[in-house]
Amino acid sequence: MTDNFIGSLKNLWTSHNSLLCVGLDPNLSLLPPHLSERDDAVFEFCTAIIDATHDLVCAYKPQIAYFADTAKEEQLRAVIEYVKNKYPHIPIILDAKRGDIGSTASMYAHEAFDRFKADAVTINPYMGQDSAQPFLDRADKGVVVLCRTSNAGGAEFQDLLVGGAPLYERVARNVFEHWNKNDNCALVVGATNPKQMERVRSLVGDMPFLVPGVGAQGGDVAALLKAGLTEAKSGLVINSSRGIIFSSVEEDYAQKAREAAIALRDEINLYR
Amino acid sequence: MTDNFIGSLKNLWTSHNSLLCVGLDPNLSLLPPHLSERDDAVFEFCTAIIDATHDLVCAYKPQIAYFADTAKEEQLRAVIEYVKNKYPHIPIILDAKRGDIGSTASMYAHEAFDRFKADAVTINPYMGQDSAQPFLDRADKGVVVLCRTSNAGGAEFQDLLVGGAPLYERVARNVFEHWNKNDNCALVVGATNPKQMERVRSLVGDMPFLVPGVGAQGGDVAALLKAGLTEAKSGLVINSSRGIIFSSVEEDYAQKAREAAIALRDEINLYR
Repeated sequence: MTDNFIGSLKNLWTSHNSLLCVGLDPNLSLLPPHLSERDDAVFEFCTAIIDATHDLVCAYKPQIAYFADTAKEEQLRAVIEYVKNKYPHIPIILDAKRGDIGSTASMYAHEAFDRFKADAVTINPYMGQDSAQPFLDRADKGVVVLCRTSNAGGAEFQDLLVGGAPLYERVARNVFEHWNKNDNCALVVGATNPKQMERVRSLVGDMPFLVPGVGAQGGDVAALLKAGLTEAKSGLVINSSRGIIFSSVEEDYAQKAREAAIALRDEINLYR
Repeated sequence: MTDNFIGSLKNLWTSHNSLLCVGLDPNLSLLPPHLSERDDAVFEFCTAIIDATHDLVCAYKPQIAYFADTAKEEQLRAVIEYVKNKYPHIPIILDAKRGDIGSTASMYAHEAFDRFKADAVTINPYMGQDSAQPFLDRADKGVVVLCRTSNAGGAEFQDLLVGGAPLYERVARNVFEHWNKNDNCALVVGATNPKQMERVRSLVGDMPFLVPGVGAQGGDVAALLKAGLTEAKSGLVINSSRGIIFSSVEEDYAQKAREAAIALRDEINLYR
Protein backbone atom coordinates (compact mmCIF):
# COMPACT_ATOMS: atom_id res chain seq x y z
CA MET A 1 0.00 0.00 0.00
CA THR A 2 1.01 3.54 -0.66
CA ASP A 3 -0.69 6.12 1.51
CA ASN A 4 -4.06 5.63 -0.13
CA PHE A 5 -6.18 3.04 -1.90
CA ILE A 6 -6.32 4.54 -5.36
CA GLY A 7 -2.58 5.24 -5.30
CA SER A 8 -2.00 1.57 -4.58
CA LEU A 9 -4.17 0.53 -7.50
CA LYS A 10 -2.28 2.85 -9.83
CA ASN A 11 1.03 1.40 -8.68
CA LEU A 12 -0.05 -2.17 -9.35
CA TRP A 13 -1.76 -1.43 -12.65
CA THR A 14 1.76 -0.48 -13.74
CA SER A 15 4.18 -2.56 -11.66
CA HIS A 16 2.19 -5.80 -11.91
CA ASN A 17 0.93 -4.86 -15.35
CA SER A 18 -2.43 -6.13 -14.23
CA LEU A 19 -6.03 -4.98 -13.96
CA LEU A 20 -7.03 -8.27 -12.38
CA CYS A 21 -8.70 -8.53 -8.98
CA VAL A 22 -9.13 -11.98 -7.50
CA GLY A 23 -12.38 -12.35 -5.61
CA LEU A 24 -12.14 -14.42 -2.46
CA ASP A 25 -15.54 -16.12 -2.09
CA PRO A 26 -14.62 -19.18 -0.03
CA ASN A 27 -17.95 -20.98 -0.28
CA LEU A 28 -17.46 -23.92 2.09
CA SER A 29 -19.42 -26.30 -0.11
CA LEU A 30 -17.08 -25.64 -3.05
CA LEU A 31 -13.72 -25.90 -1.27
CA PRO A 32 -11.33 -28.71 -2.13
CA PRO A 33 -12.49 -31.74 -0.13
CA HIS A 34 -9.06 -32.28 1.41
CA LEU A 35 -9.41 -28.91 3.16
CA SER A 36 -13.00 -29.08 4.21
CA GLU A 37 -12.41 -30.93 7.48
CA ARG A 38 -10.02 -28.30 8.78
CA ASP A 39 -11.24 -25.60 11.15
CA ASP A 40 -9.06 -23.10 9.33
CA ALA A 41 -10.09 -24.28 5.85
CA VAL A 42 -11.18 -20.83 4.74
CA PHE A 43 -7.95 -19.17 5.89
CA GLU A 44 -5.82 -21.93 4.38
CA PHE A 45 -7.68 -21.79 1.09
CA CYS A 46 -7.57 -18.01 0.74
CA THR A 47 -3.92 -17.62 1.70
CA ALA A 48 -2.84 -20.42 -0.65
CA ILE A 49 -4.68 -18.65 -3.48
CA ILE A 50 -3.03 -15.37 -2.48
CA ASP A 51 0.48 -16.87 -2.36
CA ALA A 52 -0.09 -18.34 -5.81
CA THR A 53 -1.42 -15.14 -7.43
CA HIS A 54 0.07 -12.15 -5.57
CA ASP A 55 2.26 -11.04 -8.48
CA LEU A 56 -0.66 -11.17 -10.92
CA VAL A 57 -3.23 -8.88 -9.32
CA CYS A 58 -3.97 -5.24 -8.57
CA ALA A 59 -6.25 -6.11 -5.64
CA TYR A 60 -8.02 -8.85 -3.72
CA LYS A 61 -11.71 -8.69 -2.97
CA PRO A 62 -12.91 -10.89 -0.10
CA GLN A 63 -16.72 -11.13 0.01
CA ILE A 64 -17.73 -10.91 3.65
CA ALA A 65 -20.91 -12.97 3.24
CA TYR A 66 -18.84 -16.13 2.65
CA PHE A 67 -17.19 -15.62 6.00
CA ALA A 68 -20.20 -14.32 7.93
CA ASP A 69 -22.60 -17.10 7.00
CA THR A 70 -20.66 -19.52 9.19
CA ALA A 71 -19.13 -17.21 11.80
CA LYS A 72 -15.69 -17.05 10.22
CA GLU A 73 -15.04 -13.34 10.68
CA GLU A 74 -11.83 -14.11 12.54
CA GLN A 75 -10.49 -15.96 9.49
CA LEU A 76 -11.41 -12.99 7.31
CA ARG A 77 -9.46 -10.71 9.64
CA ALA A 78 -6.53 -13.12 9.56
CA VAL A 79 -6.57 -13.35 5.74
CA ILE A 80 -6.39 -9.56 5.46
CA GLU A 81 -3.65 -9.42 8.09
CA TYR A 82 -1.73 -12.05 6.13
CA VAL A 83 -1.80 -9.86 3.02
CA LYS A 84 -0.89 -6.72 4.99
CA ASN A 85 2.16 -8.49 6.44
CA LYS A 86 3.38 -10.35 3.40
CA TYR A 87 2.17 -8.26 0.44
CA PRO A 88 1.60 -4.80 1.91
CA HIS A 89 1.52 -3.21 -1.53
CA ILE A 90 -1.68 -5.07 -2.51
CA PRO A 91 -4.95 -3.35 -1.56
CA ILE A 92 -7.87 -5.28 -0.12
CA ILE A 93 -11.40 -4.38 -1.15
CA LEU A 94 -13.88 -5.72 1.39
CA ASP A 95 -17.06 -6.52 -0.54
CA ALA A 96 -19.77 -5.83 2.01
CA LYS A 97 -22.21 -3.46 0.23
CA ARG A 98 -22.95 -1.65 3.45
CA GLY A 99 -25.26 1.34 3.81
CA ASP A 100 -27.14 2.85 6.72
CA ILE A 101 -27.81 6.16 8.48
CA GLY A 102 -24.92 8.20 9.76
CA SER A 103 -24.33 6.82 13.26
CA THR A 104 -24.71 3.22 12.10
CA ALA A 105 -22.63 3.85 9.00
CA SER A 106 -19.83 4.99 11.31
CA MET A 107 -19.94 1.56 12.93
CA TYR A 108 -19.81 -0.14 9.54
CA ALA A 109 -16.86 2.02 8.52
CA HIS A 110 -15.14 1.00 11.73
CA GLU A 111 -15.91 -2.65 11.02
CA ALA A 112 -14.40 -2.51 7.52
CA PHE A 113 -11.41 -0.26 8.07
CA ASP A 114 -10.41 -0.77 11.72
CA ARG A 115 -11.62 -4.24 12.67
CA PHE A 116 -10.82 -5.95 9.37
CA LYS A 117 -8.27 -3.36 8.17
CA ALA A 118 -9.52 -3.39 4.60
CA ASP A 119 -8.23 -0.68 2.26
CA ALA A 120 -11.59 -0.18 0.56
CA VAL A 121 -15.19 -1.28 0.99
CA THR A 122 -18.17 -1.55 -1.33
CA ILE A 123 -21.25 0.46 -0.32
CA ASN A 124 -24.83 0.81 -1.55
CA PRO A 125 -25.94 4.33 -2.58
CA TYR A 126 -29.70 3.99 -2.01
CA MET A 127 -29.70 5.89 1.30
CA GLY A 128 -27.76 8.86 -0.07
CA GLN A 129 -24.59 10.76 0.69
CA ASP A 130 -25.04 11.11 4.45
CA SER A 131 -25.09 7.31 4.69
CA ALA A 132 -21.75 7.22 2.85
CA GLN A 133 -20.07 10.10 4.67
CA PRO A 134 -18.36 8.11 7.46
CA PHE A 135 -16.72 6.04 4.72
CA LEU A 136 -15.93 9.03 2.49
CA ASP A 137 -14.29 10.83 5.40
CA ARG A 138 -11.57 8.18 5.53
CA ALA A 139 -9.41 9.81 2.89
CA ASP A 140 -6.82 7.04 2.83
CA LYS A 141 -9.47 4.40 2.24
CA GLY A 142 -11.41 3.56 -0.93
CA VAL A 143 -15.20 3.82 -1.15
CA VAL A 144 -16.54 1.69 -3.97
CA VAL A 145 -20.14 2.68 -4.68
CA LEU A 146 -22.61 0.40 -6.47
CA CYS A 147 -23.51 2.07 -9.75
CA ARG A 148 -24.64 -0.48 -12.37
CA THR A 149 -24.44 -4.04 -11.11
CA SER A 150 -23.94 -7.08 -13.33
CA ASN A 151 -26.90 -9.18 -12.20
CA ALA A 152 -30.09 -9.47 -14.25
CA GLY A 153 -32.07 -7.70 -11.53
CA GLY A 154 -29.72 -4.73 -11.74
CA ALA A 155 -32.02 -3.28 -14.40
CA GLU A 156 -35.12 -3.19 -12.16
CA PHE A 157 -34.29 0.14 -10.48
CA GLN A 158 -30.85 1.11 -11.77
CA ASP A 159 -32.04 1.50 -15.36
CA LEU A 160 -35.13 3.59 -14.57
CA LEU A 161 -34.97 6.98 -16.23
CA VAL A 162 -34.64 10.01 -13.99
CA GLY A 163 -34.58 13.31 -15.83
CA GLY A 164 -33.93 11.51 -19.11
CA ALA A 165 -31.00 9.37 -17.97
CA PRO A 166 -30.92 6.10 -16.06
CA LEU A 167 -30.63 6.12 -12.29
CA TYR A 168 -27.16 4.53 -12.36
CA GLU A 169 -25.88 7.53 -14.32
CA ARG A 170 -27.27 9.83 -11.65
CA VAL A 171 -25.46 7.78 -9.04
CA ALA A 172 -22.25 8.10 -11.06
CA ARG A 173 -22.70 11.86 -11.46
CA ASN A 174 -23.46 12.48 -7.80
CA VAL A 175 -20.51 10.40 -6.67
CA PHE A 176 -18.22 12.20 -9.11
CA GLU A 177 -19.50 15.71 -8.39
CA HIS A 178 -20.36 15.56 -4.67
CA TRP A 179 -19.17 12.44 -2.88
CA ASN A 180 -15.59 12.39 -4.13
CA LYS A 181 -14.12 15.36 -2.23
CA ASN A 182 -11.27 13.18 -0.96
CA ASP A 183 -10.59 11.58 -4.36
CA ASN A 184 -11.23 8.20 -2.78
CA CYS A 185 -14.31 6.99 -4.65
CA ALA A 186 -14.69 4.21 -7.18
CA LEU A 187 -17.78 2.70 -8.81
CA VAL A 188 -19.06 -0.82 -9.33
CA VAL A 189 -19.88 -1.11 -13.02
CA GLY A 190 -20.69 -4.59 -14.30
CA ALA A 191 -18.98 -6.20 -17.27
CA THR A 192 -22.22 -7.42 -18.78
CA ASN A 193 -23.25 -4.22 -20.57
CA PRO A 194 -20.34 -2.39 -22.22
CA LYS A 195 -22.55 0.42 -23.57
CA GLN A 196 -23.52 1.32 -20.03
CA MET A 197 -19.89 1.20 -18.94
CA GLU A 198 -18.84 3.46 -21.81
CA ARG A 199 -21.48 5.97 -20.78
CA VAL A 200 -20.41 5.92 -17.13
CA ARG A 201 -16.76 6.32 -18.13
CA SER A 202 -17.71 9.43 -20.10
CA LEU A 203 -19.22 10.93 -16.93
CA VAL A 204 -16.54 10.33 -14.30
CA GLY A 205 -13.10 10.90 -15.80
CA ASP A 206 -10.57 8.37 -14.61
CA MET A 207 -12.44 7.22 -11.49
CA PRO A 208 -11.68 3.53 -10.97
CA PHE A 209 -14.34 0.94 -11.76
CA LEU A 210 -14.63 -2.32 -9.90
CA VAL A 211 -15.94 -4.64 -12.59
CA PRO A 212 -17.79 -7.84 -11.66
CA GLY A 213 -19.35 -10.15 -14.18
CA VAL A 214 -16.38 -11.43 -16.17
CA GLY A 215 -16.19 -15.19 -16.50
CA ALA A 216 -19.01 -16.99 -14.68
CA GLN A 217 -21.43 -14.15 -15.44
CA GLY A 218 -20.48 -13.99 -19.11
CA GLY A 219 -19.01 -10.52 -19.58
CA ASP A 220 -16.92 -9.99 -22.74
CA VAL A 221 -13.36 -8.86 -21.94
CA ALA A 222 -12.60 -7.10 -25.22
CA ALA A 223 -15.81 -5.10 -25.13
CA LEU A 224 -15.46 -4.08 -21.51
CA LEU A 225 -11.87 -2.91 -22.00
CA LYS A 226 -12.88 -0.82 -24.97
CA ALA A 227 -15.73 0.68 -22.96
CA GLY A 228 -14.06 1.23 -19.63
CA LEU A 229 -10.34 1.93 -20.00
CA THR A 230 -9.12 5.39 -19.13
CA GLU A 231 -6.74 7.38 -21.33
CA ALA A 232 -3.91 5.89 -19.27
CA LYS A 233 -5.10 2.40 -20.33
CA SER A 234 -6.06 1.55 -16.81
CA GLY A 235 -8.84 2.58 -14.40
CA LEU A 236 -10.35 -0.90 -14.15
CA VAL A 237 -10.28 -3.45 -11.36
CA ILE A 238 -11.65 -6.49 -13.13
CA ASN A 239 -12.84 -9.06 -10.66
CA SER A 240 -13.04 -12.80 -11.13
CA SER A 241 -13.93 -15.03 -8.22
CA ARG A 242 -15.24 -18.50 -9.03
CA GLY A 243 -13.54 -18.55 -12.44
CA ILE A 244 -10.17 -18.40 -10.70
CA ILE A 245 -10.44 -19.77 -7.18
CA PHE A 246 -12.43 -22.88 -8.06
CA SER A 247 -10.40 -23.87 -11.13
CA SER A 248 -9.63 -27.14 -9.38
CA VAL A 249 -10.89 -28.86 -6.26
CA GLU A 250 -7.86 -31.14 -6.09
CA GLU A 251 -4.68 -30.51 -4.13
CA ASP A 252 -3.38 -28.46 -7.07
CA TYR A 253 -6.11 -25.82 -6.59
CA ALA A 254 -3.70 -22.95 -5.92
CA GLN A 255 -1.55 -23.77 -8.95
CA LYS A 256 -4.68 -24.02 -11.11
CA ALA A 257 -5.87 -20.70 -9.72
CA ARG A 258 -2.51 -19.21 -10.76
CA GLU A 259 -2.93 -20.56 -14.28
CA ALA A 260 -6.45 -19.15 -14.52
CA ALA A 261 -5.27 -15.79 -13.17
CA ILE A 262 -2.43 -15.63 -15.70
CA ALA A 263 -4.83 -16.48 -18.52
CA LEU A 264 -7.32 -13.78 -17.55
CA ARG A 265 -4.66 -11.15 -16.81
CA ASP A 266 -3.13 -11.83 -20.22
CA GLU A 267 -6.48 -11.80 -21.99
CA ILE A 268 -7.19 -8.43 -20.38
CA ASN A 269 -3.78 -7.08 -21.37
CA LEU A 270 -4.31 -8.17 -24.96
CA TYR A 271 -6.99 -5.49 -25.25
CA ARG A 272 -5.34 -2.72 -23.22
CA MET B 1 -43.51 -16.70 17.21
CA THR B 2 -46.35 -18.18 15.25
CA ASP B 3 -45.36 -19.93 12.07
CA ASN B 4 -44.36 -16.74 10.32
CA PHE B 5 -43.04 -13.26 10.96
CA ILE B 6 -46.04 -11.21 9.92
CA GLY B 7 -48.38 -13.50 11.85
CA SER B 8 -46.30 -12.84 14.95
CA LEU B 9 -46.51 -9.09 14.44
CA LYS B 10 -50.29 -9.29 14.10
CA ASN B 11 -50.54 -11.29 17.30
CA LEU B 12 -48.54 -8.76 19.29
CA TRP B 13 -50.19 -5.69 17.79
CA THR B 14 -53.31 -7.10 19.48
CA SER B 15 -52.14 -9.08 22.51
CA HIS B 16 -49.53 -6.54 23.62
CA ASN B 17 -51.64 -3.68 22.29
CA SER B 18 -48.40 -2.26 20.95
CA LEU B 19 -46.89 -1.04 17.68
CA LEU B 20 -43.59 -0.34 19.40
CA CYS B 21 -40.32 -1.90 18.32
CA VAL B 22 -37.30 -1.37 20.54
CA GLY B 23 -34.11 -0.96 18.55
CA LEU B 24 -31.07 -2.58 20.10
CA ASP B 25 -28.11 -0.38 19.11
CA PRO B 26 -25.64 -1.15 21.89
CA ASN B 27 -23.09 1.49 21.06
CA LEU B 28 -20.25 0.67 23.44
CA SER B 29 -19.39 4.30 24.05
CA LEU B 30 -22.94 5.00 25.26
CA LEU B 31 -23.43 2.02 27.57
CA PRO B 32 -23.82 2.58 31.31
CA PRO B 33 -20.29 2.92 32.72
CA HIS B 34 -20.83 0.20 35.32
CA LEU B 35 -21.26 -2.31 32.46
CA SER B 36 -18.55 -1.16 30.15
CA GLU B 37 -15.73 -3.14 31.75
CA ARG B 38 -17.53 -6.45 31.30
CA ASP B 39 -16.72 -8.69 28.34
CA ASP B 40 -20.42 -9.49 28.00
CA ALA B 41 -21.52 -5.85 28.41
CA VAL B 42 -23.48 -5.87 25.14
CA PHE B 43 -25.33 -9.09 25.99
CA GLU B 44 -26.03 -7.95 29.53
CA PHE B 45 -27.27 -4.56 28.38
CA CYS B 46 -29.54 -5.90 25.64
CA THR B 47 -31.08 -8.69 27.71
CA ALA B 48 -31.76 -6.35 30.64
CA ILE B 49 -33.56 -4.00 28.27
CA ILE B 50 -35.50 -6.95 26.86
CA ASP B 51 -36.51 -8.26 30.27
CA ALA B 52 -37.72 -4.78 31.18
CA THR B 53 -39.75 -4.19 28.00
CA HIS B 54 -40.89 -7.57 26.65
CA ASP B 55 -44.57 -6.99 27.41
CA LEU B 56 -44.54 -3.59 25.71
CA VAL B 57 -43.29 -4.38 22.22
CA CYS B 58 -44.31 -6.03 18.96
CA ALA B 59 -40.69 -6.69 17.95
CA TYR B 60 -37.03 -6.07 18.74
CA LYS B 61 -34.62 -4.75 16.14
CA PRO B 62 -30.94 -5.39 16.84
CA GLN B 63 -28.70 -3.38 14.48
CA ILE B 64 -25.85 -5.68 13.47
CA ALA B 65 -23.34 -2.86 12.93
CA TYR B 66 -23.20 -2.20 16.68
CA PHE B 67 -22.12 -5.79 17.22
CA ALA B 68 -19.92 -6.20 14.14
CA ASP B 69 -17.78 -3.11 14.68
CA THR B 70 -16.12 -4.78 17.66
CA ALA B 71 -16.42 -8.47 16.81
CA LYS B 72 -19.41 -9.14 19.08
CA GLU B 73 -21.40 -11.36 16.69
CA GLU B 74 -21.50 -14.11 19.28
CA GLN B 75 -23.24 -11.77 21.71
CA LEU B 76 -25.76 -10.86 19.00
CA ARG B 77 -26.47 -14.55 18.46
CA ALA B 78 -26.83 -15.04 22.20
CA VAL B 79 -29.21 -12.08 22.56
CA ILE B 80 -31.48 -13.50 19.86
CA GLU B 81 -31.29 -16.96 21.41
CA TYR B 82 -32.25 -15.42 24.76
CA VAL B 83 -35.41 -13.95 23.24
CA LYS B 84 -36.24 -17.19 21.38
CA ASN B 85 -36.00 -19.14 24.64
CA LYS B 86 -37.69 -16.74 27.02
CA TYR B 87 -40.08 -14.75 24.81
CA PRO B 88 -40.63 -16.98 21.76
CA HIS B 89 -43.68 -15.00 20.67
CA ILE B 90 -41.62 -11.84 20.01
CA PRO B 91 -40.13 -11.54 16.52
CA ILE B 92 -36.60 -10.31 15.96
CA ILE B 93 -35.84 -8.04 13.01
CA LEU B 94 -32.13 -8.09 12.23
CA ASP B 95 -31.28 -4.68 10.84
CA ALA B 96 -28.51 -5.45 8.39
CA LYS B 97 -29.60 -3.81 5.10
CA ARG B 98 -28.02 -6.58 3.09
CA GLY B 99 -28.10 -6.88 -0.69
CA ASP B 100 -25.95 -8.70 -3.22
CA ILE B 101 -26.15 -11.00 -6.24
CA GLY B 102 -27.93 -14.31 -5.89
CA SER B 103 -25.22 -16.66 -4.67
CA THR B 104 -23.89 -14.13 -2.17
CA ALA B 105 -27.41 -13.15 -1.10
CA SER B 106 -27.98 -16.81 -0.21
CA MET B 107 -25.06 -16.57 2.18
CA TYR B 108 -26.46 -13.40 3.71
CA ALA B 109 -29.88 -15.05 4.12
CA HIS B 110 -28.14 -17.95 5.83
CA GLU B 111 -26.29 -15.51 8.08
CA ALA B 112 -29.48 -13.74 9.18
CA PHE B 113 -31.91 -16.63 9.43
CA ASP B 114 -29.77 -19.66 10.29
CA ARG B 115 -26.68 -18.34 12.02
CA PHE B 116 -28.39 -15.59 14.01
CA LYS B 117 -31.92 -17.08 13.84
CA ALA B 118 -33.58 -13.74 13.21
CA ASP B 119 -37.23 -13.77 12.14
CA ALA B 120 -36.81 -10.95 9.65
CA VAL B 121 -34.03 -8.94 8.07
CA THR B 122 -33.79 -5.54 6.43
CA ILE B 123 -32.53 -5.50 2.84
CA ASN B 124 -31.59 -2.86 0.27
CA PRO B 125 -33.52 -2.95 -3.03
CA TYR B 126 -30.94 -1.29 -5.31
CA MET B 127 -29.74 -4.53 -6.91
CA GLY B 128 -33.25 -5.72 -7.78
CA GLN B 129 -35.44 -8.73 -7.13
CA ASP B 130 -32.92 -11.46 -7.89
CA SER B 131 -30.73 -10.05 -5.11
CA ALA B 132 -33.69 -10.38 -2.73
CA GLN B 133 -34.90 -13.80 -3.87
CA PRO B 134 -32.95 -15.96 -1.39
CA PHE B 135 -34.55 -13.92 1.40
CA LEU B 136 -38.01 -13.89 -0.21
CA ASP B 137 -37.92 -17.67 -0.63
CA ARG B 138 -37.90 -18.10 3.15
CA ALA B 139 -41.68 -17.91 3.48
CA ASP B 140 -41.66 -18.08 7.27
CA LYS B 141 -39.23 -15.18 7.53
CA GLY B 142 -39.85 -11.48 7.04
CA VAL B 143 -38.09 -9.42 4.36
CA VAL B 144 -38.11 -5.74 5.21
CA VAL B 145 -37.16 -3.72 2.13
CA LEU B 146 -35.82 -0.17 2.30
CA CYS B 147 -38.37 2.08 0.62
CA ARG B 148 -38.16 5.67 1.94
CA THR B 149 -35.59 6.08 4.66
CA SER B 150 -35.75 8.71 7.39
CA ASN B 151 -32.30 10.27 6.95
CA ALA B 152 -31.78 13.59 5.18
CA GLY B 153 -29.85 11.85 2.39
CA GLY B 154 -32.80 9.57 1.71
CA ALA B 155 -34.07 12.17 -0.74
CA GLU B 156 -30.99 12.08 -2.97
CA PHE B 157 -32.05 9.04 -5.01
CA GLN B 158 -35.26 7.80 -3.39
CA ASP B 159 -37.20 10.96 -4.28
CA LEU B 160 -36.09 11.12 -7.92
CA LEU B 161 -39.04 10.91 -10.28
CA VAL B 162 -39.30 7.82 -12.45
CA GLY B 163 -42.29 7.80 -14.77
CA GLY B 164 -43.86 10.65 -12.84
CA ALA B 165 -43.58 9.17 -9.35
CA PRO B 166 -40.66 9.02 -6.94
CA LEU B 167 -38.34 6.03 -6.96
CA TYR B 168 -39.43 4.94 -3.48
CA GLU B 169 -42.98 4.52 -4.78
CA ARG B 170 -41.66 2.30 -7.56
CA VAL B 171 -39.85 0.23 -4.98
CA ALA B 172 -43.08 -0.07 -2.98
CA ARG B 173 -45.06 -1.07 -6.08
CA ASN B 174 -42.57 -3.66 -7.23
CA VAL B 175 -42.30 -5.20 -3.79
CA PHE B 176 -46.10 -5.30 -3.50
CA GLU B 177 -46.76 -6.62 -7.01
CA HIS B 178 -43.77 -8.88 -7.65
CA TRP B 179 -41.60 -9.57 -4.63
CA ASN B 180 -44.33 -10.49 -2.15
CA LYS B 181 -45.41 -13.89 -3.50
CA ASN B 182 -44.97 -15.43 -0.06
CA ASP B 183 -46.73 -12.59 1.78
CA ASN B 184 -43.59 -12.06 3.80
CA CYS B 185 -42.54 -8.56 2.75
CA ALA B 186 -42.55 -5.34 4.72
CA LEU B 187 -41.18 -1.88 3.90
CA VAL B 188 -38.99 0.61 5.70
CA VAL B 189 -40.83 3.93 5.59
CA GLY B 190 -39.42 6.72 7.73
CA ALA B 191 -41.48 8.72 10.21
CA THR B 192 -40.08 12.02 9.07
CA ASN B 193 -42.41 12.60 6.10
CA PRO B 194 -46.03 11.58 6.74
CA LYS B 195 -47.17 12.58 3.24
CA GLN B 196 -44.78 10.07 1.74
CA MET B 197 -45.95 7.41 4.17
CA GLU B 198 -49.58 8.08 3.32
CA ARG B 199 -48.80 7.67 -0.36
CA VAL B 200 -46.94 4.40 0.19
CA ARG B 201 -49.78 3.09 2.37
CA SER B 202 -52.18 3.77 -0.50
CA LEU B 203 -50.06 1.59 -2.79
CA VAL B 204 -49.45 -1.53 -0.72
CA GLY B 205 -52.61 -2.45 1.21
CA ASP B 206 -51.85 -3.63 4.72
CA MET B 207 -48.20 -4.50 4.19
CA PRO B 208 -46.32 -3.78 7.43
CA PHE B 209 -44.06 -0.74 7.65
CA LEU B 210 -40.97 -0.66 9.80
CA VAL B 211 -40.83 3.00 10.81
CA PRO B 212 -37.56 4.56 11.94
CA GLY B 213 -37.17 8.20 12.77
CA VAL B 214 -39.43 8.67 15.79
CA GLY B 215 -37.81 10.37 18.76
CA ALA B 216 -34.15 11.18 18.14
CA GLN B 217 -34.82 11.85 14.45
CA GLY B 218 -37.84 14.04 15.15
CA GLY B 219 -40.76 12.19 13.55
CA ASP B 220 -44.24 13.26 14.71
CA VAL B 221 -46.20 10.35 16.19
CA ALA B 222 -49.71 11.67 15.54
CA ALA B 223 -48.96 12.48 11.91
CA LEU B 224 -47.29 9.18 11.19
CA LEU B 225 -50.15 7.18 12.71
CA LYS B 226 -52.66 9.07 10.63
CA ALA B 227 -50.59 8.45 7.52
CA GLY B 228 -49.57 4.86 8.04
CA LEU B 229 -52.18 2.90 9.99
CA THR B 230 -54.08 0.22 8.15
CA GLU B 231 -57.84 -0.20 8.36
CA ALA B 232 -57.23 -2.61 11.23
CA LYS B 233 -55.47 0.22 13.12
CA SER B 234 -52.18 -1.57 12.95
CA GLY B 235 -49.62 -2.31 10.18
CA LEU B 236 -46.83 -0.29 11.79
CA VAL B 237 -43.68 -1.38 13.59
CA ILE B 238 -42.53 1.91 15.06
CA ASN B 239 -38.90 1.74 16.07
CA SER B 240 -37.18 3.72 18.75
CA SER B 241 -33.61 2.91 19.68
CA ARG B 242 -31.63 5.61 21.46
CA GLY B 243 -34.78 7.28 22.80
CA ILE B 244 -35.50 4.17 24.82
CA ILE B 245 -32.33 2.24 25.50
CA PHE B 246 -30.20 5.20 26.55
CA SER B 247 -32.80 6.86 28.79
CA SER B 248 -30.36 6.47 31.66
CA VAL B 249 -26.71 5.50 31.94
CA GLU B 250 -27.05 4.71 35.63
CA GLU B 251 -27.78 1.33 37.17
CA ASP B 252 -31.50 2.01 36.66
CA TYR B 253 -31.09 2.00 32.86
CA ALA B 254 -33.45 -0.93 32.28
CA GLN B 255 -36.19 0.55 34.45
CA LYS B 256 -35.80 3.90 32.69
CA ALA B 257 -35.98 2.13 29.36
CA ARG B 258 -39.23 0.55 30.49
CA GLU B 259 -40.63 3.93 31.42
CA ALA B 260 -39.64 5.40 28.06
CA ALA B 261 -41.14 2.40 26.26
CA ILE B 262 -44.42 2.74 28.14
CA ALA B 263 -44.55 6.44 27.34
CA LEU B 264 -43.98 5.91 23.62
CA ARG B 265 -46.29 2.90 23.38
CA ASP B 266 -49.02 4.92 25.06
CA GLU B 267 -48.41 7.99 22.94
CA ILE B 268 -48.72 5.79 19.86
CA ASN B 269 -51.92 4.18 21.14
CA LEU B 270 -53.43 7.60 21.80
CA TYR B 271 -53.57 8.12 18.04
CA ARG B 272 -54.57 4.60 16.94
